Amino acid sequence: MIAVPPSTSLPSVAVARPTVRARRFGIDTYQEPVIYMRRDCEVCRAEGFEAHTRLRVTAGDREIIATLNVTLDHFLEVDEAGLSEAAWRLLGVEEGDLMTVGHVEPLDSLSHVRAKMYGQTLNEAQLGAIVQDAVAGRYSDVELAAFLTATAGDRMTVEETVALTRAMTRAGDRLRWDAFPVVDKHCVGGLPGNRTTPIVVAIAAAEGLVIPKTSSRAITSPAGTADTMETLAPVTLSIEQMRRVVEREQGCVVWGGSVGLSPADETFIRIERALDVDSPGQMVASVLSKKAAAGSTHVVLDLPVGPTAKVRDFESARTLSRLLVACAEAVGLHLRVVTTDGRQPVGRGIGPALEARDILAVLRNEAAAPADLRMRSLELAGELLELGGKCAPGSGVRCAERVLAGGRAWDKFQAICEAQGGMRVPPVAPYTAEVTADRAGVVHAIDNRRLSRIAKLCGAPQAPAAGVTFLAPLGTQVRCGQPLLQLHAETPGELRYALDYARQNPATVAVTDG
Amino acid sequence: MIAVPPSTSLPSVAVARPTVRARRFGIDTYQEPVIYMRRDCEVCRAEGFEAHTRLRVTAGDREIIATLNVTLDHFLEVDEAGLSEAAWRLLGVEEGDLMTVGHVEPLDSLSHVRAKMYGQTLNEAQLGAIVQDAVAGRYSDVELAAFLTATAGDRMTVEETVALTRAMTRAGDRLRWDAFPVVDKHCVGGLPGNRTTPIVVAIAAAEGLVIPKTSSRAITSPAGTADTMETLAPVTLSIEQMRRVVEREQGCVVWGGSVGLSPADETFIRIERALDVDSPGQMVASVLSKKAAAGSTHVVLDLPVGPTAKVRDFESARTLSRLLVACAEAVGLHLRVVTTDGRQPVGRGIGPALEARDILAVLRNEAAAPADLRMRSLELAGELLELGGKCAPGSGVRCAERVLAGGRAWDKFQAICEAQGGMRVPPVAPYTAEVTADRAGVVHAIDNRRLSRIAKLCGAPQAPAAGVTFLAPLGTQVRCGQPLLQLHAETPGELRYALDYARQNPATVAVTDG
Repeated sequence: MIAVPPSTSLPSVAVARPTVRARRFGIDTYQEPVIYMRRDCEVCRAEGFEAHTRLRVTAGDREIIATLNVTLDHFLEVDEAGLSEAAWRLLGVEEGDLMTVGHVEPLDSLSHVRAKMYGQTLNEAQLGAIVQDAVAGRYSDVELAAFLTATAGDRMTVEETVALTRAMTRAGDRLRWDAFPVVDKHCVGGLPGNRTTPIVVAIAAAEGLVIPKTSSRAITSPAGTADTMETLAPVTLSIEQMRRVVEREQGCVVWGGSVGLSPADETFIRIERALDVDSPGQMVASVLSKKAAAGSTHVVLDLPVGPTAKVRDFESARTLSRLLVACAEAVGLHLRVVTTDGRQPVGRGIGPALEARDILAVLRNEAAAPADLRMRSLELAGELLELGGKCAPGSGVRCAERVLAGGRAWDKFQAICEAQGGMRVPPVAPYTAEVTADRAGVVHAIDNRRLSRIAKLCGAPQAPAAGVTFLAPLGTQVRCGQPLLQLHAETPGELRYALDYARQNPATVAVTDG
Repeated sequence: MIAVPPSTSLPSVAVARPTVRARRFGIDTYQEPVIYMRRDCEVCRAEGFEAHTRLRVTAGDREIIATLNVTLDHFLEVDEAGLSEAAWRLLGVEEGDLMTVGHVEPLDSLSHVRAKMYGQTLNEAQLGAIVQDAVAGRYSDVELAAFLTATAGDRMTVEETVALTRAMTRAGDRLRWDAFPVVDKHCVGGLPGNRTTPIVVAIAAAEGLVIPKTSSRAITSPAGTADTMETLAPVTLSIEQMRRVVEREQGCVVWGGSVGLSPADETFIRIERALDVDSPGQMVASVLSKKAAAGSTHVVLDLPVGPTAKVRDFESARTLSRLLVACAEAVGLHLRVVTTDGRQPVGRGIGPALEARDILAVLRNEAAAPADLRMRSLELAGELLELGGKCAPGSGVRCAERVLAGGRAWDKFQAICEAQGGMRVPPVAPYTAEVTADRAGVVHAIDNRRLSRIAKLCGAPQAPAAGVTFLAPLGTQVRCGQPLLQLHAETPGELRYALDYARQNPATVAVTDG
């Protein structure tokens, strides 16, 4: 079949692909690239674009796929197109640069997503293509949601999980260290205040293990390890700066986002958060790919189990552990999973600065330091020392305790903070309020999720001094009127919101008639 | 647990929920409600909102849930919030009205979506809650995608499909007619030019059957029945106007969107299109809920089967038919499924006006009328006459042919057009071009999808005169240079784009050496 010249007269020059001038539109759509064009612009009319169309946008040698939003005429000139912050960043244009805009041919990898929706099993090449397109910003949020849903629950085999882990690792940079072993520690999260990382890193590094720890900021929780650590030292380091810290002190605690090791994880995680799902297969691929990308060889994983933790019961913990170990082996990581008590927060502080003060108390061996945070840190550090070959099997906790009690962990922590840019004093919140027991009795249940919510309403983690001091662990005998929580906020409005919520949710800290 | 007054001084009046002034922002995000707020606005800061947060927005007695996009300060005053077109429409505010903005409590029905993601079976109450929240605009696009993916492929049982059909029917208005039977006809689509509806309606109504037909506009195809019919008569009628047409002439062909019968279908379909999926369960629920909402009792369903049609093979057609019949029975519809040839377009025209001229040729019994369109219309009308009790089993086609050949269908069609507001003459496109065979041989395969694409690049359906005349059905002996397609456009640019595409896709009409 060939196309012949038309029967009526047409301009004899070929019609070029339509171009528009770039304008930074100044709208933050989170990470989804959006292009804003006028309904009456020539390109929209000629191409028949409609709102929600996916468009290929090219400038120089860069190309992105963006979702079209159609605007009224007062925002843009007729030959302009606005770019959302994400699109502007990805395309790397300057104000007024010419861009070509065109239809998107369907992505091949989306046919794999549809195959998965229809129950087929994907191979490593197919999962690799999906991850590559997703990281390159070629998937819309709706398409990402379809992929994450199609692979949710128990819909990924162990082989698929391994393949996804490999694909996610390959999608970003990978650190290499002139050391073996390179150890790491991770917690699957969901437990407020479980901030063992800085303590574990200090102990392991003091014993000479190389532990280049990258941590995340909070996304839906009141504090990520990076947020907490930031009240003690700078955490936004380049890869080179991080490398120098580790060369000097063996360990670090920096923000993983600044070193950009896991672009696939960053792409998927915001949709997982929006959907409030974290399926075993995706979680395992996410965790292990991050560890592999950081150049780790030996990893201890903290898996808190409790009714309001991420892993609800021991049956799920066992299934998840098996999957983790199988996938870790397949990607060449030595992994040890430690199942821990996830029924209630660890330590007293929930929120960046409050958690930081718990950490300092443990490192300084203060008498009032939270015993549960200390013990859990020693257990995890002990596993790491054993796994890293620094002490005999079974002697890890004793060994870790010697390092901590002797002050070497505290020395090392201060040295790491100095190397990261200088030690800081965590801020104190100006507004506080108490939530008290409305009866005498025994604390018999803690709702970690509601507790996190209260800390977030107080302003954490954006307000680093904000959060909750948790005063009544499970089994505490309380009298009527005894403080259960202390709320900390940087503004009176936030304190009021948090108090309102606490008042409406008395089961957050449940007291039985004892 | 009770909250006690804070230990530091706070204003003693309760802090009101934060308010902002409404501004119509003039951005069309398709149907997703979006709220635009400044990063530095008091509400954003106090509430800790981030881009992509879902917010509850209240004005007067209306409430919507919208996705937050954060803007630079030059767009809005600090106490203003912009609303996308969809949000503006749903909330029904005026410029400057006060709105309250707050966090969204997780929707209960999303826990059912997550349960489905984890492989559980949902009951009617759960599916009903999902549909209700989705129709009320409480689901983000990402959440809709998760629901549609979790129920895709073969992941819905027959019981779930029945329950979803009932839930989707209940979610909108339902027409009631003082007649029995009330007949209807539907095609699952995917076949260009398959425009039998106006002919079938004319024959059925001429025989005294009540057939209040609502049709859709094109979403991804070059013409919907409503687009085609609109070149012959007005189709945007209110429910009352539609009722008067049917009372007078027994039948009508109006745009379903204007009578608003299937809000759930409209909500789901745009995400299905974005994902390019149309799973059996969702398709069945969508079709049957629309028929039930229109008040139909007896329905004939045209199911074209072909490698580039929606249903690819007869095995899939059988499975789908069984599901359709089972679900129709469960919701009290008499359904007959007719499997038809879906290997190539029906008739010659593809595009609103071109299809309309085929319809007129058949109704007027012109010698040059497309025989395939005529025959298929008679088959479907025959089934409908039998199903509606107007003729004996096996005599339907003969009966329909008498009505058509005797001119009664043409009379009835003209009467219906007059009742809908006056008959129109379909427009003719000013620019045309031909695509010819590059060799002599036999036409052995047609790619319906590429053919549709060419018609859309010509400008259909926005340009009603645009589209393709299909000149070489399967089996046609062609000589080199013989026209296979004629392209029609309203602008030279569109004609050029369509020709370019046709040139790059010679397999659209495949000719073998014969």
